[in-house]
Amino acid sequence: MQQLMSKESLDDFLKKEFPQVSKNFKILTASDQSLSMLMYITTEHLRPGATVSGPTMFLLADVTFYLATLSIIGPKSLTVTTNCSINFLRKPNEKNLISEARILKLGKTLSVGDVLIYSEDIDKPVAHASLTYSIPQK
Amino acid sequence: MQQLMSKESLDDFLKKEFPQVSKNFKILTASDQSLSMLMYITTEHLRPGATVSGPTMFLLADVTFYLATLSIIGPKSLTVTTNCSINFLRKPNEKNLISEARILKLGKTLSVGDVLIYSEDIDKPVAHASLTYSIPQK
Amino acid sequence: MQQLMSKESLDDFLKKEFPQVSKNFKILTASDQSLSMLMYITTEHLRPGATVSGPTMFLLADVTFYLATLSIIGPKSLTVTTNCSINFLRKPNEKNLISEARILKLGKTLSVGDVLIYSEDIDKPVAHASLTYSIPQK
Amino acid sequence: MQQLMSKESLDDFLKKEFPQVSKNFKILTASDQSLSMLMYITTEHLRPGATVSGPTMFLLADVTFYLATLSIIGPKSLTVTTNCSINFLRKPNEKNLISEARILKLGKTLSVGDVLIYSEDIDKPVAHASLTYSIPQK
Repeated sequence: MQQLMSKESLDDFLKKEFPQVSKNFKILTASDQSLSMLMYITTEHLRPGATVSGPTMFLLADVTFYLATLSIIGPKSLTVTTNCSINFLRKPNEKNLISEARILKLGKTLSVGDVLIYSEDIDKPVAHASLTYSIPQK
Repeated sequence: MQQLMSKESLDDFLKKEFPQVSKNFKILTASDQSLSMLMYITTEHLRPGATVSGPTMFLLADVTFYLATLSIIGPKSLTVTTNCSINFLRKPNEKNLISEARILKLGKTLSVGDVLIYSEDIDKPVAHASLTYSIPQK
Repeated sequence: MQQLMSKESLDDFLKKEFPQVSKNFKILTASDQSLSMLMYITTEHLRPGATVSGPTMFLLADVTFYLATLSIIGPKSLTVTTNCSINFLRKPNEKNLISEARILKLGKTLSVGDVLIYSEDIDKPVAHASLTYSIPQK
Repeated sequence: MQQLMSKESLDDFLKKEFPQVSKNFKILTASDQSLSMLMYITTEHLRPGATVSGPTMFLLADVTFYLATLSIIGPKSLTVTTNCSINFLRKPNEKNLISEARILKLGKTLSVGDVLIYSEDIDKPVAHASLTYSIPQK
């Protein structure tokens, strides 16, 4: 696989297409094999029990795999999630989250892979998501 | 199965435990078999393409199955999602969402079931989620 | 949705395309909304603990949703499973299994739905599977 | 994590507890982090289109993660699958399959992880499964 969008192009794309949420995210690394992000956690992402909410971890997995796919296929913003299966493994801290996406298959119509999510100061992953994205045919 | 919390108790619980998000949700019906909710969609829930974002539908599925479980087991707020597999079926309108939860198993440690999500003015479901919640043992 | 294959055509298709396994299955009902099957359980399907193995239930879910999809789109035998998420809910008896498939979306390229699996003499479902099939484009 | 069962003990366990199927499987490597197996493919595992059936890949994923879990917790044969989400990525050859399991969480009651499945002579994985096993409490 060859990378069509660099870390910088992905940053610009995120700011332009998702202005409301882009401030919460930072792309850490982007290669043709994997993509890693940081998500800044604020009070709106917390839930009772001093932890981060499940939908917040889902959001991070979804954004990370979306950008990992676009880094290979280019800026097709209408690429959409068709399936996500997520396992919540451990209680995160009230701290920032870090994600690591891996693409397992990139075909003409589907992109399939997984994302591990880590919480700052916890060694092992707090969540693991498998995702499928549908790629628009023009 | 017998219902331990009525629609009114669930409403109060939601307001007390999740003050930031409770204003977006309204419980429509709650019985010992199923629970239905309305989610008010505002601009923060939209994404490019005049549609509602995937994480918003995940959030609604998660909250609906959580309350469906609590309606049977009582107000154990530390009940947590361990797995969710969600299929996105159709593009929702920029309108409110309606959810319908069904409990398939309620054991001592796990609650398992599914949630259908509808978009106002679209006949068929826009998403289908299967969820597992872990019930805290005291 | 309109039904392209009747229960009888599906029976013939199963015998011709899957001669090794078709003797284990019987289609009970087939309409444009749902399809139900019986699976005859023999010693090869059992596992320690006097129960039916997980892969046997997966096989039944897979065959049932495959035939439910073909009943609408016609005998496209190269239709393939792309995703299955299955929850095992209760321990089945060492008895026959019954399945009920429901189609939630049938688009041009994907068929999405779920299957409930019951064990004879147990009221509630023993497994619940969500499946996605990819439909070949010619 | 510390390994309680070596490759040899796992081999013996498989032969004793699953005599009907053990001849189809061979454990390649077993460490405290991962476990890899070979599955011998015979005509009973094939399906139309010169490929291996989906339920066969599910079976291999299930057995591999089961043994990966037992290698850490010891020979608790009543450990059962509660959830499996599997993505089928590419068409396998009519050849043997190889699996690689990874444990992401091993708690008191649940073991969670994933399995990649390869087909001989194909570089990239043909399937990816995420599994949850419930560990019996005595």
